[in-house]
Amino acid sequence: MKEVNMAEKPNILSTVPEMDYMEKAPNIDAKEFQKVIDSRRSVRVFDGEPIPEKVVNRCLENALLAPNSSNLQPWKFFWVHSDEKKKGIVKACFGQSAAKTASELFVVVASTGTWKGHAAEMVALLKKGGPDIPKLAIQYYKKIVPFVYTLGFLGVLGFLKRFLYFFRGLSAPIIREPVTRGHLRLWAVKSTALGAENLMLSLRAYGYDSCPMEGYDSKRIKKILELPGDSSVVMVVAAGKRVKGGIYGPRIRFDSGRFIEKV
Amino acid sequence: MKEVNMAEKPNILSTVPEMDYMEKAPNIDAKEFQKVIDSRRSVRVFDGEPIPEKVVNRCLENALLAPNSSNLQPWKFFWVHSDEKKKGIVKACFGQSAAKTASELFVVVASTGTWKGHAAEMVALLKKGGPDIPKLAIQYYKKIVPFVYTLGFLGVLGFLKRFLYFFRGLSAPIIREPVTRGHLRLWAVKSTALGAENLMLSLRAYGYDSCPMEGYDSKRIKKILELPGDSSVVMVVAAGKRVKGGIYGPRIRFDSGRFIEKV
Repeated sequence: MKEVNMAEKPNILSTVPEMDYMEKAPNIDAKEFQKVIDSRRSVRVFDGEPIPEKVVNRCLENALLAPNSSNLQPWKFFWVHSDEKKKGIVKACFGQSAAKTASELFVVVASTGTWKGHAAEMVALLKKGGPDIPKLAIQYYKKIVPFVYTLGFLGVLGFLKRFLYFFRGLSAPIIREPVTRGHLRLWAVKSTALGAENLMLSLRAYGYDSCPMEGYDSKRIKKILELPGDSSVVMVVAAGKRVKGGIYGPRIRFDSGRFIEKV
Repeated sequence: MKEVNMAEKPNILSTVPEMDYMEKAPNIDAKEFQKVIDSRRSVRVFDGEPIPEKVVNRCLENALLAPNSSNLQPWKFFWVHSDEKKKGIVKACFGQSAAKTASELFVVVASTGTWKGHAAEMVALLKKGGPDIPKLAIQYYKKIVPFVYTLGFLGVLGFLKRFLYFFRGLSAPIIREPVTRGHLRLWAVKSTALGAENLMLSLRAYGYDSCPMEGYDSKRIKKILELPGDSSVVMVVAAGKRVKGGIYGPRIRFDSGRFIEKV
């Protein structure tokens, strides 16, 4: 962890690999994007007409294009389509109107158990990339990622790392998390939420609405979807087209000065 | 909690208030939105030119328009602008290139201590809304929200709720979280991450790039920003314009079939 510890000296994060790669940023009509942001409201009553499969797929693919921690892609998006499963999910969401009237239902799940395999795959992919791939990138997935995310049997390594970070942190900046399973879950949920926002904005852009729900029985949802033990249900997203009365009044936000601080 | 427990009978979530309210969804040129999603890459070297204040403000305001749990807005977005604070944050991010070369730096923070006040404000705002506001909405913020989110001194209420939920959950769907401080943190981070994605996509739409960072010393960042104890640093977002070599190669994603499941 020498590299991550040293803020002043060049390290694996501060060293810029010499690359000629460039992706030109396209011109974008920001007004169209702004309409997406402004018109996305939580819709609680939908018209129930199915969303074309093509649109759903595009929106789900867009979710996977969200930034995510170290590209470890700790997410999973379930498109709940069968009548039986849908019924189960609606019930697990206490029959709330957004779920009940939804044209499509998605369950957004974060996984804490996939990072290891994904890191190994990143190593393999980068190695296949040939000599142009910076060695540091491979080292990052081979050394840093396993060090940072491994918590060990019963979390013992996490526990030890907590002390290590504390003492190293006295003299120099050091990473502090994850050292508990809770931290790791937080980590996975965070990236997954970024994907969920992509999903909801995409639905809006393609003419549909959504409602993210957190009022549900996570235990029952896990059972219905047969989720493995490392999964967390991040949210259920109901989608469809808004109907009159489906938005419960004008948007309310507290004064933005409270939440935006220039320091 | 009778209402939330009963999936089959009408409850506060399943009952649709009779409202005439309608917001017409605008026509959106989805191609422009798609360009935002497709061209958003994590940029690790920026040109360092400042982003116009107007653009920054718009992007930050857009962050606050993200959906968030029960509209309790548990977020805070710091725009780190002063040289001194910026230097501190860069150091706390181990001097990583995205932070070092950033035109603007943002620290995205989740708060677990603001929900109570915000719920009370929602009650006051809704009451002011007059007779058109459904009584159920006021009840939701007055009764359900405090019941669900209060963990009590040393988390005692959360502990008791865990048992309550378990036993009630044997016969009917019931909410399961939050019953620990970790759950509450997860809850706040989740909504805040949705806002962070709005921020990053907005930057792209308005011609700028970003890089979300999780490699940082959260303890030092909290100290620099004098964050209260209920705060979690969700991510640091570096922003600016991409330069050649600032994107480390073409986007890599594993096969989407692994992450999207139709059930």
